[in-house]
Amino acid sequence: MQALIMVAHGSRVRASNDEVRLLTAALAARVADRYQHTATAFLELADPSIGAAIDAAVAAGAREVVILPYFLAAGAHVARDIPAIVQERQVAHPTITIRLADYLGKLPGLVELLASSV
Amino acid sequence: MQALIMVAHGSRVRASNDEVRLLTAALAARVADRYQHTATAFLELADPSIGAAIDAAVAAGAREVVILPYFLAAGAHVARDIPAIVQERQVAHPTITIRLADYLGKLPGLVELLASSV
Repeated sequence: MQALIMVAHGSRVRASNDEVRLLTAALAARVADRYQHTATAFLELADPSIGAAIDAAVAAGAREVVILPYFLAAGAHVARDIPAIVQERQVAHPTITIRLADYLGKLPGLVELLASSV
Repeated sequence: MQALIMVAHGSRVRASNDEVRLLTAALAARVADRYQHTATAFLELADPSIGAAIDAAVAAGAREVVILPYFLAAGAHVARDIPAIVQERQVAHPTITIRLADYLGKLPGLVELLASSV
């Protein structure tokens, strides 16, 4: 079973976190044929944490967990913090494959999306 | 002449700001048939400011300026700060049309872009 976890920074503003959760729900419906378990996780300021979301996916039976960082730029969170958490949970779950996908700001299709919006 | 200004939050990390500038450059090439002037602006922590970028576009001859917020969620920056700046510059340039486009996190194609990345 394959799981997808969308990871956002997290905000003190509840509505911002809920906005990410709604986006994850739309994404979950779109990729349901490939991902049987989908969740939102937050680096800080909101729950669940990334580690807890990975553990929950594994407990639900995931054999592969894909982490999708919902971030705009390759700052310290994308370059260091999220990979460190992924590596730590990979060590804790050696029989599971945890894969870190490209963050939003790096996706090649982003330019086309922005261009079509203006 | 139509101008496009991509507005990001701005970061203390120079590389993050440069990443947005590179994205704007790619976007500029993609929309060059419709936008003859394209710029990156930052809400804080980096230059140019949104107001300065609007003024520069008008000085360059823009008759319509489109503001594209490179933001993930509708927090205070998207809901209040950026509209306030746009409104202030609209008052300062009454013969120019300044249009605030949807922010990245609200674009309908975002789900498809994320789905195709995982």
